[in-house]
Amino acid sequence: MFSEKFFEVLNKEGVVSIVTSGKDSAHVSNTWNSYIVIVDENKILIPAAAMINTEENININSNVKLTIGSHEVMGYRYMGTGFLLEGTAKFLKSGDHFKMMMDKFPFLTRVLEVTVSSCKQTL
Amino acid sequence: MFSEKFFEVLNKEGVVSIVTSGKDSAHVSNTWNSYIVIVDENKILIPAAAMINTEENININSNVKLTIGSHEVMGYRYMGTGFLLEGTAKFLKSGDHFKMMMDKFPFLTRVLEVTVSSCKQTL
Repeated sequence: MFSEKFFEVLNKEGVVSIVTSGKDSAHVSNTWNSYIVIVDENKILIPAAAMINTEENININSNVKLTIGSHEVMGYRYMGTGFLLEGTAKFLKSGDHFKMMMDKFPFLTRVLEVTVSSCKQTL
Repeated sequence: MFSEKFFEVLNKEGVVSIVTSGKDSAHVSNTWNSYIVIVDENKILIPAAAMINTEENININSNVKLTIGSHEVMGYRYMGTGFLLEGTAKFLKSGDHFKMMMDKFPFLTRVLEVTVSSCKQTL
């Protein structure tokens, strides 16, 4: 699911966008590349502190898109690459993954779990 | 409209997300912090090469959201800050701003112009 280049990007700091579809408009929240934790081959865990609108939206439509990139990792032709991830999301409030994330990120109130169906390098 | 801290972020490289609302789902495209050009106090110009879905969406609903940040600029409490911008977008295919952008970014086919109504620091 995730290429070596994707993991290279995770190792550089940057802004991740988490895009959900609301009733009337799209919503976007953010996290850092370094906050992304991969588990079970195709799942991404993200610590959530607020993310109120994100949670409201995914309760109606669980489809999410994430973008992540770094100008310090080589793309197809030039320095700088990025990825578009698509999948479905839910919020974890208990369980092993929740506990593991709580140990890493004590500020979280929930964990955003994204089951990734597609991870495309965009440039 | 734009704070000193916002300009500090523009001077650090990073991934910008451009979020539009489609008929069925949200869409997200990306650019680099360094590609953002400010004109007329409240307008952002972005070189557009593809951005096909973004253009289709804004022809129906011109509202856009942009996120931009840097881990190297101090936020409210810790290192790392980010901004959420809201506004309306259109694509320029001619005119002075188009020509000025074409000189800077010869790869562009159009210019995405965002008239910003709100620029909020989010952390």
